[in-house]
Amino acid sequence: MKQNDTKRSTGCPVAFGLDTFGDRWSLLIIRDIMIKGQKTYSEFLESGEKIASNILVDRLKHLEAEGIVKKQRDPDNRRSFLYTLTPKGLDLAPIMIELILWSAKHDDRPFALRDTIKEIQKDQPQFEKRLRRG
Amino acid sequence: MKQNDTKRSTGCPVAFGLDTFGDRWSLLIIRDIMIKGQKTYSEFLESGEKIASNILVDRLKHLEAEGIVKKQRDPDNRRSFLYTLTPKGLDLAPIMIELILWSAKHDDRPFALRDTIKEIQKDQPQFEKRLRRG
Repeated sequence: MKQNDTKRSTGCPVAFGLDTFGDRWSLLIIRDIMIKGQKTYSEFLESGEKIASNILVDRLKHLEAEGIVKKQRDPDNRRSFLYTLTPKGLDLAPIMIELILWSAKHDDRPFALRDTIKEIQKDQPQFEKRLRRG
Repeated sequence: MKQNDTKRSTGCPVAFGLDTFGDRWSLLIIRDIMIKGQKTYSEFLESGEKIASNILVDRLKHLEAEGIVKKQRDPDNRRSFLYTLTPKGLDLAPIMIELILWSAKHDDRPFALRDTIKEIQKDQPQFEKRLRRG
């Protein structure tokens, strides 16, 4: 779903969060950066779910405008950009972790990110710290 | 966004979670039940964000099909229905709580659910327990 640029005006923190990052493609991009350590447009494009390039461009712009993702020139290749999470983006770590745990419990298909799940289950606070370090 | 009935096949737990409940309207319905204690179609319809009735019907069906919401006849009024969370739906409590905390930190507008935020900040595990009791 295309994100609204205007946030819902009810002042509900659940609605605010969803208006800011609660789009499925946006959260998969945040996963790619936060969990998989990906940083470039082409890495996101080749990620498992095969995001369409127009959606990827739209969501990266939205996440940048919301202050969740930071776009910088790659110092090693001045023609390309690196995307990283801002502190506001890194603060999404606990939501991401709880989302992974919920799915690990309720999806009975064999899982990707199996090592990630094991790591979280072994020491959740430590895993969160690691994610927050970026 | 209309939920896909077929889940993405990458087996990623983030994608699984988003395919199951990761729609903004679905999460607001889950909030209405989990946090606001609402149970009926008309309560959801009158909630702050003014969901359209066709979207509400669609999302309630989806959440029921996913085993997150349970629909039962109201014992006090056999012509209407009550919607409650299943154990799988109640397991979304930690995600909902982390979402509220993230928004409380990053939205500087005056907030709805202020008492909820205070309660979470005071004793997060206790608040989670209370949500899980339904």
